[in-house]
Amino acid sequence: MSFSEILKDSVAKVNGAVSALVIGTDGISVHEYISEKSIDLTGLSAEASTMIKDITMVAESLGLGVAREFSIVSDKFSIILRRINPEYYVAMVLKPGANFGKGRFILKMSVPKLEKEF
Amino acid sequence: MSFSEILKDSVAKVNGAVSALVIGTDGISVHEYISEKSIDLTGLSAEASTMIKDITMVAESLGLGVAREFSIVSDKFSIILRRINPEYYVAMVLKPGANFGKGRFILKMSVPKLEKEF
Repeated sequence: MSFSEILKDSVAKVNGAVSALVIGTDGISVHEYISEKSIDLTGLSAEASTMIKDITMVAESLGLGVAREFSIVSDKFSIILRRINPEYYVAMVLKPGANFGKGRFILKMSVPKLEKEF
Repeated sequence: MSFSEILKDSVAKVNGAVSALVIGTDGISVHEYISEKSIDLTGLSAEASTMIKDITMVAESLGLGVAREFSIVSDKFSIILRRINPEYYVAMVLKPGANFGKGRFILKMSVPKLEKEF
């Protein structure tokens, strides 16, 4: 499966998911799948880069081990980010009322598939 | 219910939850309940303060609206933070394999109870 197919498949499996993307820790979006327009994914990629750095530092400082996933739930959208490898993350954007738990699960399941594509 | 009771009750309701605390956005822990020793909660409170600021800025910059909740899932522990009001957050620390979804739900349910105590 290609990046496109994995991302599309992941969004399709989660009620309320609107997009999924592979983001480099340098802040560049590598691949995007959009089923419904939501937030600016270029902006998200750039912000994600900062968040990944901050949260990795927090996890180290608190002795949490490797930070595998982090998420933000807000009034308008939720974002889940999951680590593929030290250089890349996969993100999913969800609408309010989306199946957040399913989103976490599907994103986790997508990681080994995405890893093969690098 | 007092802070103590609400936090203790929240931890008791979630399989794998080890502690819950009320954190000020200034980085000071207001109240802690610990059922099992895990990470340094003073350190968590301080780091949470930085994360709250960063994530609030990210949410604003991406037009996400108010960030209600954020979480980190790592190899050793997971942390869920939920906004009580602009000055205070409630956090839950969970062991690997904990019921993360239940943790999110219970923390959300604790917010109106905690709000009354301020």
